[in-house]
Amino acid sequence: MDYSKLNGLIPAVIQDADSHEVLMVGFMNDEALARTRESGYATFFSRTRNKLWMKGETSGNRLAVTDILVDCDDDTVLVKVKRQGDGNVCHTGERSCFYRKLDTP
Amino acid sequence: MDYSKLNGLIPAVIQDADSHEVLMVGFMNDEALARTRESGYATFFSRTRNKLWMKGETSGNRLAVTDILVDCDDDTVLVKVKRQGDGNVCHTGERSCFYRKLDTP
Repeated sequence: MDYSKLNGLIPAVIQDADSHEVLMVGFMNDEALARTRESGYATFFSRTRNKLWMKGETSGNRLAVTDILVDCDDDTVLVKVKRQGDGNVCHTGERSCFYRKLDTP
Repeated sequence: MDYSKLNGLIPAVIQDADSHEVLMVGFMNDEALARTRESGYATFFSRTRNKLWMKGETSGNRLAVTDILVDCDDDTVLVKVKRQGDGNVCHTGERSCFYRKLDTP
Protein backbone atom coordinates (compact mmCIF):
# COMPACT_ATOMS: atom_id res chain seq x y z
CA MET A 1 0.00 0.00 0.00
CA ASP A 2 1.04 3.58 -0.65
CA TYR A 3 0.71 5.58 2.56
CA SER A 4 2.74 8.52 1.27
CA LYS A 5 -0.09 10.68 -0.05
CA LEU A 6 -1.82 11.37 3.28
CA ASN A 7 0.99 11.35 5.83
CA GLY A 8 0.89 7.64 6.57
CA LEU A 9 -2.85 7.14 6.13
CA ILE A 10 -5.20 5.72 3.53
CA PRO A 11 -8.97 6.16 3.34
CA ALA A 12 -10.96 3.01 4.12
CA VAL A 13 -14.46 2.85 2.69
CA ILE A 14 -16.75 0.59 4.70
CA GLN A 15 -19.50 -1.11 2.72
CA ASP A 16 -22.18 -3.47 4.00
CA ALA A 17 -21.48 -6.86 2.38
CA ASP A 18 -25.18 -7.70 2.16
CA SER A 19 -27.08 -4.46 1.51
CA HIS A 20 -24.14 -2.78 -0.32
CA GLU A 21 -24.76 0.49 1.56
CA VAL A 22 -21.68 2.63 2.12
CA LEU A 23 -21.66 2.96 5.89
CA MET A 24 -18.69 5.17 6.72
CA VAL A 25 -15.21 6.25 5.68
CA GLY A 26 -12.35 6.02 8.15
CA PHE A 27 -8.58 6.18 7.88
CA MET A 28 -6.06 3.42 8.37
CA ASN A 29 -2.32 3.44 8.81
CA ASP A 30 -0.17 0.39 8.17
CA GLU A 31 -0.78 -0.96 11.67
CA ALA A 32 -4.56 -0.44 11.52
CA LEU A 33 -4.74 -2.36 8.25
CA ALA A 34 -2.60 -5.16 9.68
CA ARG A 35 -4.84 -5.37 12.77
CA THR A 36 -7.94 -5.37 10.57
CA ARG A 37 -6.58 -8.31 8.59
CA GLU A 38 -5.43 -10.23 11.67
CA SER A 39 -8.47 -9.65 13.86
CA GLY A 40 -11.12 -9.76 11.15
CA TYR A 41 -12.67 -6.55 12.54
CA ALA A 42 -12.38 -3.10 11.02
CA THR A 43 -9.78 -1.10 12.93
CA PHE A 44 -8.96 2.52 12.18
CA PHE A 45 -6.47 5.18 13.08
CA SER A 46 -8.20 8.07 14.81
CA ARG A 47 -6.80 11.37 13.60
CA THR A 48 -8.32 13.27 16.51
CA ARG A 49 -7.26 10.87 19.26
CA ASN A 50 -4.02 9.89 17.48
CA LYS A 51 -4.42 6.17 18.17
CA LEU A 52 -5.86 2.94 16.82
CA TRP A 53 -9.47 2.02 17.55
CA MET A 54 -11.41 -1.07 16.71
CA LYS A 55 -14.85 0.17 15.70
CA GLY A 56 -17.46 -1.09 18.19
CA GLU A 57 -14.93 -2.57 20.62
CA THR A 58 -16.87 -1.17 23.58
CA SER A 59 -20.39 -0.86 22.09
CA GLY A 60 -20.34 -4.32 20.52
CA ASN A 61 -21.24 -2.83 17.12
CA ARG A 62 -18.16 -4.30 15.52
CA LEU A 63 -17.69 -4.62 11.77
CA ALA A 64 -16.75 -8.18 10.80
CA VAL A 65 -14.68 -8.10 7.61
CA THR A 66 -15.66 -10.32 4.70
CA ASP A 67 -13.39 -8.83 2.01
CA ILE A 68 -10.76 -6.16 1.59
CA LEU A 69 -10.24 -4.70 -1.87
CA VAL A 70 -7.40 -2.43 -2.95
CA ASP A 71 -7.72 0.27 -5.56
CA CYS A 72 -5.65 0.58 -8.73
CA ASP A 73 -3.02 2.90 -7.28
CA ASP A 74 -2.77 1.24 -3.87
CA ASP A 75 -3.85 4.26 -1.86
CA THR A 76 -7.39 3.31 -0.79
CA VAL A 77 -9.12 0.20 0.54
CA LEU A 78 -12.72 -0.93 0.28
CA VAL A 79 -13.68 -3.05 3.28
CA LYS A 80 -16.81 -5.17 3.03
CA VAL A 81 -18.34 -5.96 6.39
CA LYS A 82 -21.15 -7.61 8.27
CA ARG A 83 -22.54 -5.45 11.06
CA GLN A 84 -22.66 -6.81 14.56
CA GLY A 85 -24.60 -5.56 17.61
CA ASP A 86 -27.49 -3.26 16.82
CA GLY A 87 -26.07 -2.64 13.37
CA ASN A 88 -26.07 1.15 13.68
CA VAL A 89 -22.70 2.28 12.44
CA CYS A 90 -22.90 6.04 12.96
CA HIS A 91 -22.25 7.60 16.36
CA THR A 92 -25.49 9.57 15.89
CA GLY A 93 -27.42 6.28 16.02
CA GLU A 94 -28.08 6.22 12.31
CA ARG A 95 -27.58 3.06 10.31
CA SER A 96 -24.98 4.73 8.04
CA CYS A 97 -22.95 7.92 8.46
CA PHE A 98 -24.29 9.08 5.07
CA TYR A 99 -27.85 9.92 6.05
CA ARG A 100 -28.10 13.50 4.72
CA LYS A 101 -28.53 14.50 1.11
CA LEU A 102 -27.03 17.60 -0.51
CA ASP A 103 -29.26 19.53 -2.87
CA THR A 104 -28.29 19.26 -6.50
CA PRO A 105 -29.75 21.58 -9.12
CA MET B 1 -18.37 20.93 4.60
CA ASP B 2 -15.27 20.68 6.75
CA TYR B 3 -12.21 20.87 4.52
CA SER B 4 -9.79 21.46 7.39
CA LYS B 5 -8.76 17.87 8.07
CA LEU B 6 -7.02 17.20 4.76
CA ASN B 7 -5.62 20.57 3.71
CA GLY B 8 -8.68 21.75 1.86
CA LEU B 9 -9.81 18.38 0.53
CA ILE B 10 -12.47 15.80 1.34
CA PRO B 11 -12.65 12.20 0.11
CA ALA B 12 -15.44 11.55 -2.39
CA VAL B 13 -16.63 7.95 -2.64
CA ILE B 14 -18.16 7.17 -6.02
CA GLN B 15 -20.86 4.51 -6.01
CA ASP B 16 -22.83 3.15 -8.95
CA ALA B 17 -26.45 4.21 -8.37
CA ASP B 18 -27.78 1.02 -9.98
CA SER B 19 -25.37 -1.81 -9.13
CA HIS B 20 -24.21 -0.22 -5.84
CA GLU B 21 -20.58 -1.07 -6.64
CA VAL B 22 -18.01 1.31 -5.16
CA LEU B 23 -16.18 2.46 -8.26
CA MET B 24 -13.45 4.79 -7.05
CA VAL B 25 -12.44 7.31 -4.40
CA GLY B 26 -11.26 10.75 -5.41
CA PHE B 27 -10.73 14.03 -3.60
CA MET B 28 -12.69 17.24 -3.90
CA ASN B 29 -12.00 20.75 -2.74
CA ASP B 30 -14.74 23.32 -2.32
CA GLU B 31 -14.60 24.29 -5.99
CA ALA B 32 -14.69 20.68 -7.21
CA LEU B 33 -17.79 19.99 -5.12
CA ALA B 34 -19.45 23.17 -6.39
CA ARG B 35 -18.67 22.20 -10.00
CA THR B 36 -19.99 18.69 -9.38
CA ARG B 37 -23.28 20.10 -8.10
CA GLU B 38 -23.60 22.67 -10.87
CA SER B 39 -22.59 20.48 -13.79
CA GLY B 40 -24.14 17.23 -12.60
CA TYR B 41 -20.89 15.39 -13.38
CA ALA B 42 -18.35 14.19 -10.84
CA THR B 43 -15.41 16.62 -10.76
CA PHE B 44 -12.33 16.10 -8.61
CA PHE B 45 -9.23 17.91 -7.51
CA SER B 46 -6.15 16.10 -8.75
CA ARG B 47 -3.46 16.03 -6.08
CA THR B 48 -0.76 15.09 -8.56
CA ARG B 49 -1.69 17.62 -11.25
CA ASN B 50 -2.88 20.23 -8.75
CA LYS B 51 -6.01 21.13 -10.71
CA LEU B 52 -9.67 20.29 -11.18
CA TRP B 53 -10.68 17.53 -13.55
CA MET B 54 -14.08 16.35 -14.64
CA LYS B 55 -13.80 12.58 -14.78
CA GLY B 56 -14.30 11.39 -18.36
CA GLU B 57 -14.30 14.85 -19.89
CA THR B 58 -12.10 13.68 -22.77
CA SER B 59 -12.89 9.94 -22.83
CA GLY B 60 -16.65 10.42 -22.58
CA ASN B 61 -16.78 8.11 -19.56
CA ARG B 62 -18.36 10.77 -17.42
CA LEU B 63 -20.11 10.06 -14.16
CA ALA B 64 -23.60 11.58 -14.07
CA VAL B 65 -24.55 12.41 -10.49
CA THR B 66 -27.88 11.20 -9.13
CA ASP B 67 -27.33 11.95 -5.42
CA ILE B 68 -24.72 13.47 -3.12
CA LEU B 69 -24.75 12.39 0.52
CA VAL B 70 -22.76 13.98 3.33
CA ASP B 71 -21.43 12.07 6.32
CA CYS B 72 -22.16 12.84 9.96
CA ASP B 73 -19.12 15.04 10.54
CA ASP B 74 -19.20 16.84 7.19
CA ASP B 75 -15.80 15.67 6.00
CA THR B 76 -16.69 13.08 3.35
CA VAL B 77 -19.19 12.82 0.50
CA LEU B 78 -20.79 9.80 -1.11
CA VAL B 79 -21.62 10.48 -4.74
CA LYS B 80 -24.05 8.18 -6.50
CA VAL B 81 -23.60 8.11 -10.25
CA LYS B 82 -24.68 6.65 -13.53
CA ARG B 83 -21.80 5.69 -15.77
CA GLN B 84 -21.60 7.10 -19.27
CA GLY B 85 -19.50 5.99 -22.24
CA ASP B 86 -18.11 2.48 -22.00
CA GLY B 87 -18.77 2.44 -18.25
CA ASN B 88 -15.22 1.51 -17.31
CA VAL B 89 -14.26 3.85 -14.50
CA CYS B 90 -10.67 2.79 -13.81
CA HIS B 91 -7.79 4.05 -15.94
CA THR B 92 -6.64 0.41 -16.23
CA GLY B 93 -9.79 -0.37 -18.20
CA GLU B 94 -11.46 -2.18 -15.30
CA ARG B 95 -15.06 -1.48 -14.42
CA SER B 96 -14.13 -0.34 -10.89
CA CYS B 97 -10.81 0.74 -9.37
CA PHE B 98 -11.33 -1.89 -6.65
CA TYR B 99 -10.62 -5.02 -8.68
CA ARG B 100 -7.97 -6.67 -6.47
CA LYS B 101 -8.60 -8.49 -3.23
CA LEU B 102 -6.25 -8.54 -0.24
CA ASP B 103 -5.75 -11.88 1.50
CA THR B 104 -7.38 -12.10 4.89
CA PRO B 105 -6.55 -14.93 7.29
